[in-house]
Formats: sequence, C-alpha cells, structure tokens
Amino acid sequence: MIKIIRIEESIFQENEKIADQVRNILRGNNILGINVMGAPGSGKTSFIERTIDVLKDEFKFGVIEGDVEGKVDSEKFLKFNISVIQINTGGGCHLDANMVKKAVSEIDLEQIEILFIENVGNLICPAEFDIGTEKNIVISSITEGDDKIEKYPLIFKVSDLCILNKIDLVPYLDFDFGKFENDLKNISSGSKLIKLSSKTGENFNIWIEYLKGLKREKK
Amino acid sequence: MIKIIRIEESIFQENEKIADQVRNILRGNNILGINVMGAPGSGKTSFIERTIDVLKDEFKFGVIEGDVEGKVDSEKFLKFNISVIQINTGGGCHLDANMVKKAVSEIDLEQIEILFIENVGNLICPAEFDIGTEKNIVISSITEGDDKIEKYPLIFKVSDLCILNKIDLVPYLDFDFGKFENDLKNISSGSKLIKLSSKTGENFNIWIEYLKGLKREKK
Repeated sequence: MIKIIRIEESIFQENEKIADQVRNILRGNNILGINVMGAPGSGKTSFIERTIDVLKDEFKFGVIEGDVEGKVDSEKFLKFNISVIQINTGGGCHLDANMVKKAVSEIDLEQIEILFIENVGNLICPAEFDIGTEKNIVISSITEGDDKIEKYPLIFKVSDLCILNKIDLVPYLDFDFGKFENDLKNISSGSKLIKLSSKTGENFNIWIEYLKGLKREKK
Repeated sequence: MIKIIRIEESIFQENEKIADQVRNILRGNNILGINVMGAPGSGKTSFIERTIDVLKDEFKFGVIEGDVEGKVDSEKFLKFNISVIQINTGGGCHLDANMVKKAVSEIDLEQIEILFIENVGNLICPAEFDIGTEKNIVISSITEGDDKIEKYPLIFKVSDLCILNKIDLVPYLDFDFGKFENDLKNISSGSKLIKLSSKTGENFNIWIEYLKGLKREKK
C-alpha cells in the first residue's frame, strides 16, 4: 500500500514529553486540569457550562476549547467572565500536548483553580494523545446508543470517569444501561460512571461532589 | 540540506488513484456505491438497515462496514442474507480507498446492485478520503445539536446528500432547523437535505425515492 515511515512512535514520545511539561505547569500552579472528550454533539460544552455555573462562586475556572473550526463554543463561556482560549486545529481530529502548552502559556494561571480542556468532538483520535491533564473524562450520550464502548473502546479505557449524558431522554429511547455498564467494567474496571442530564440537572450534583473531591485531593 | 517528505500529499494522491480504480470496478459492474458517513451514534447502521428492508425485493444489496473494532454492526445485516464485509481499522479513524478496494475484491459483485459502505463513526477524518463511491452521504442527528455544520464543515461540503435523522425526537429537543438548513446552503449550495426518522420511518419514503432515482440515473 503506502510506504511505511515510523512517524507514529516518535510523535507519541514527543507528545508524552510535552504532556508531562503541561502537567508540571498546571500542578505547579495548583490547577486541576480536566480533559473532556466525546463524540460530536455528546454535550461536552453544556456539561462544562453547567459545571461552571454551579461552582462559579466556589472556584476560579478557565476553559480551553478545541475545535476543527470556529469559536461558537468558546463564546458560550464569555458570560462567566473567565479566561477562554480557542484552539482551532484546522482539520486536525484531536488536541495534542503542544497545542495545549501554547494555550496554557497565554492564560493567567494565577486566576485559575480548575481548567477544563474541551477536546475536538471525536471518539477515536483524542484517546491516543495525552494532553497533560490530571484527569480524562469521556462523555457519551444515551442518544448515541448503548454500543459505544464496544465500538470505541480505547477512549473509555483511558478515561477516569465516564459521563452518560442526556438521561432526560430515557423515556423516548431504547438504551440498555446494563450492557453499557458491563462494557465499561470489562474495558476499565477502575473507571467511574455517572449518569446525568446537563440539560435538566438530574444527578448533576453527583458529578459536582466528585469534582469537589478531586479538587480537595489535589490540595 | 534537509529532505522534506510530504507524506500528506502523497497519501492523498495515492488514495485518489485507488479510489478511481474502485469507482471503475463498481461502475463496470453497474453497482451504485454509497459512502455513508456520520458521527458515532448518528444512526448510520439503522438507516442502511431500514433502506435494505424497504427495498430488498427490488434491488440486490451489499454492505461494507467500517469500524475501529468489532463486528456488532455487520451482524445486523446477516438477516438479509446479503454480502457483508467488515473492515476493522484497528484504531484508524476513517476508511480509505485501499481498504475498500480489498473489501470489494472479496465480494461477488454480480450479486450486488447497490453497495453501502458505512464509514467509521467520525465527522472529521472520513471527509478527507475519497473511497471510490458514486455518492457521499452524511448523517447528522438532531440529538447532536444544530451547530454540527458550523463546527465540522468539510464533511458536509463533500457530501451530495445530508440526512438529518431522529426527527421523531423533535418534541423533546431544541433544534433550530432554519439555522441548520442555512448553514448547509452556505457550505454547499448543491447539497440536498432530507429530514427523517430511521426509527419511525417518518419521511423515509423521500430518501427511498431519491435512492431509486440515483439507481435509474446510473442505468
């Protein structure tokens, strides 16, 4: 087929090195960095929006937005008066540590306690690139069907927490929660699952308490 | 001097060449090849399933299934007693022409009039790779939100038809159809839009007539 040049390995090694630098920068500034991954339309932005809205008097937030094009998502955070950096990958299907390092260098880190990094909407490529965060979250919505872990296992495997979103639509969908939970256990026994609705707020407090716990741990 | 290896360009050129070979093979066998793209969970498989179910007495179908891992989707077509080839990309985020060429070489082409090729669930990478089909379709579901064209323009631009799926859920979602239609017109004035539900069958006949028209044109 095509001549194989082993770029992959060196790309991953270089990425890992820069990811560690990012992690050290964030830790040095006592910032909890969270990588939010998920398919297009899984509800990553509204999940982060609601989180900031609930906790805005308790913590100082920053957001790095990863998108192929545009700034429609980052504009949604302007109302909070927080630092928002938009990364446009221009066709690239994931963020990498170098993009995040550049973005981090443009934020006033003293003004941030929790930094959300919303990855490009994609269940495949982001899973392979450590971007220097403390935690990885994958958001999957029940509207996407209950077979997502089976079909895209890696992103669930590398995530510390799986958010199963849009549970307000349960009455109108056929979704096998038992299957989803079993698939998650099989792929990653240590991964936590929270079922919630970012729209109605159902169960959102479970996530909020989890996040507060993470922030306490880090202190 | 530093030697620069332009991998991207040569990959695309090589892919284009093989895509043309695939196209010629399919045309030579009077097969209508359709590339079905869309985000994870947009409903690609059930759209193809329903189409085959409606037209199984009228046309002979074949399916090539592209997935990162597993064969959960291709198993759904066994009930039709048709040729199904599963391609597992093993981490790759899209099909390419070479994968499709290999799959096509393993099908009895005389037994097929319409060949659906379901691409890997992803709104980014598949857009860049011609796989040798006559038509490209992108499926977007209203559960993904009305901003998908704005955020992932290329895949809508390269598609001849956009299927806006899951309209049975309209009552429970906020979806701005006007915005979506305008975004589509702006990105690709020649692209057709069909709003339907693969689950309930609402408006599905519009797609069926469109497909029959395509098949007639090809004769």
